Amino acid sequence: MKLTCSRNVLSSAFQIVGSVVPTRTPKEILRNVKLTLTDGRATLLGTDQEVGIRYEIPDVETDSVGEVLLPTQRVNAILREVQDDQISLEVNEDALWIRSSQSEFRLSVEDAAEFPSVASFEDENYYLIGGKSLKQAIQRTIFATDVESTRYALGGVLMEVDAEKLTLAATDSRRLAVCHTTCKAHGNVSEEIGQPVIPAKAMSLIERSIDNDEEDVKVAIHQNEVLVQSGQSTIYARLVEGRFPRYQDVIPGEYTSKIDLVVGPFLSAVRQAMIVTNEESRGVDFGFDDGTLTLTSVGQDVGSSKIALPISYDGDAVIVTFDPKYVQEFLRVLDSAGPVSLNLVDGNSAAVFKADENYTYVVMPLSRDD
Amino acid sequence: MKLTCSRNVLSSAFQIVGSVVPTRTPKEILRNVKLTLTDGRATLLGTDQEVGIRYEIPDVETDSVGEVLLPTQRVNAILREVQDDQISLEVNEDALWIRSSQSEFRLSVEDAAEFPSVASFEDENYYLIGGKSLKQAIQRTIFATDVESTRYALGGVLMEVDAEKLTLAATDSRRLAVCHTTCKAHGNVSEEIGQPVIPAKAMSLIERSIDNDEEDVKVAIHQNEVLVQSGQSTIYARLVEGRFPRYQDVIPGEYTSKIDLVVGPFLSAVRQAMIVTNEESRGVDFGFDDGTLTLTSVGQDVGSSKIALPISYDGDAVIVTFDPKYVQEFLRVLDSAGPVSLNLVDGNSAAVFKADENYTYVVMPLSRDD
Repeated sequence: MKLTCSRNVLSSAFQIVGSVVPTRTPKEILRNVKLTLTDGRATLLGTDQEVGIRYEIPDVETDSVGEVLLPTQRVNAILREVQDDQISLEVNEDALWIRSSQSEFRLSVEDAAEFPSVASFEDENYYLIGGKSLKQAIQRTIFATDVESTRYALGGVLMEVDAEKLTLAATDSRRLAVCHTTCKAHGNVSEEIGQPVIPAKAMSLIERSIDNDEEDVKVAIHQNEVLVQSGQSTIYARLVEGRFPRYQDVIPGEYTSKIDLVVGPFLSAVRQAMIVTNEESRGVDFGFDDGTLTLTSVGQDVGSSKIALPISYDGDAVIVTFDPKYVQEFLRVLDSAGPVSLNLVDGNSAAVFKADENYTYVVMPLSRDD
Repeated sequence: MKLTCSRNVLSSAFQIVGSVVPTRTPKEILRNVKLTLTDGRATLLGTDQEVGIRYEIPDVETDSVGEVLLPTQRVNAILREVQDDQISLEVNEDALWIRSSQSEFRLSVEDAAEFPSVASFEDENYYLIGGKSLKQAIQRTIFATDVESTRYALGGVLMEVDAEKLTLAATDSRRLAVCHTTCKAHGNVSEEIGQPVIPAKAMSLIERSIDNDEEDVKVAIHQNEVLVQSGQSTIYARLVEGRFPRYQDVIPGEYTSKIDLVVGPFLSAVRQAMIVTNEESRGVDFGFDDGTLTLTSVGQDVGSSKIALPISYDGDAVIVTFDPKYVQEFLRVLDSAGPVSLNLVDGNSAAVFKADENYTYVVMPLSRDD
């Protein structure tokens, strides 16, 4: 069994598939990437059994069908270090041979039959989502997950779909990110898919696998798993068990103040205000008054800071205390020249940031001591 | 006491001085950078008591003399995050105030009088070395030190100087790097300075402090310390105790083979050959034969590799086994388009790489099993 193909093509495919491969696992075989050859096509598979990816490389030269396990780290290094444009992989004498014009590597391989299977995208019924929109929606929600939580559902992103709208939501219970985008149903998609929560690791992989913004991504949601096809990649993820919080309930319906800000200067002020905080005194007071936002922080035994930012606000003075990390993580996924608004009820109720009508970010203020 | 100056100037000075500051130390006060103001001039000092640096910032606006300790991490963050071109530092109410147009930080400070002093460059007698040459000589030797060794002298770079020649040497006892460059004596320098060994940390700092290749660096060697002045920086280092090996003895006088190579392709071949090695079988066989260098490695339980490289060599076939890491570390400090020669006695004697007549790198081959 032999494959000849472009080193660059194989190398970029291998990069993305290899990113799923666990570096530490009791199941040694998962530290490989499986290569399958069918007529004129190569498929790379990687999985940690929660998340898996299948990457198709069309138009390769093959002499037969077959499969082999590629030791991820060494094959990655070979693809990176070899200088030739073309590279060949061949299996014989129970070993894998990788050859370029000047180099020859023989690698011991494990039995490919032992490798767990990775589902392929066979669905006729699925949702279609624009690559660019999905990529952005993932970037705008994934940072709010809490993969350390014992409430497993917080370690994933909720994906709600209907015939026209996709909603992603993530929360660590102190803040919530919700992003909407449009989607199209293809075939006969069921409305009865419940509340699928996709692990953060899989969402990050989906985000990285979208290499063509213009292309639609196919999403098929099953009872316990989701399958996503994007370009040459098919990503499989087991859904997270556990109930995602009723996030709609925490978004206030009405506000008493709305403050318009520009992302870049606001982020810069927040980053400055974070400097004089520490674990014991994390909170920064955000004081909005006529024409000025003043951020004040007092770090126990450290000092204090006061950062002023001219803003276009002429409402009543209001002060709200945030963990600045939560504000910073939100602002940095936005375009720095773009607008952002902060909508407040009062200093003790959930505060709602909006970058546009499709993106809502809710932060619970810290309680103010005074 | 107040200082007003350019944020950029202060920030780059602070970067280099802050790099000496220990992140963990039982002596808390060392986690600060000391700022001293004299008439129109600011000086930053940082030290871990083995190595210290003094950086002069001329042409600043000051209103008085005085000194204050700057908490390194937070001041670094402030200088990085603040957006204005100008920044002011002021001490009053026992605190440090840092202000820009929109921001104000108050930081608690420790007592500046407690900070250890850092020697200044007062010498009339010293050596002058071209900035570019010294920088290169450090880069070409420092990687061969062994800072983990209980033989402390191996954790530093030997600096031998006479009226016209500077020699830097470093070894971990399995390989040795020796680099010569020219120098000039200024004043009445003593010939009796013994064998000063400068800690790797100080050498690295000296290397980074040379920001103008064209300018000469002043080096004054005392009994137990060295002082180096480069541009605005003065670096002080306590010399490493212990005897540096008689390195001249390990360089063979005559060779039976000389092989000419080009750095870039040779390095690429070595990096490829390193892939199929592991802790148990680190060695790579370097086989030189008519017109070809063949690198072969066998990694126990991993596989094997064979890398060929066309070379201009028509001498007798010779094989020598190296730890490829040693060859790689040497090659990557060289210009990749440049020449390098390998001079061999036989496969069991010290092998000598030469990049030019002033740079010699000796590697002990691994013993060959066959």
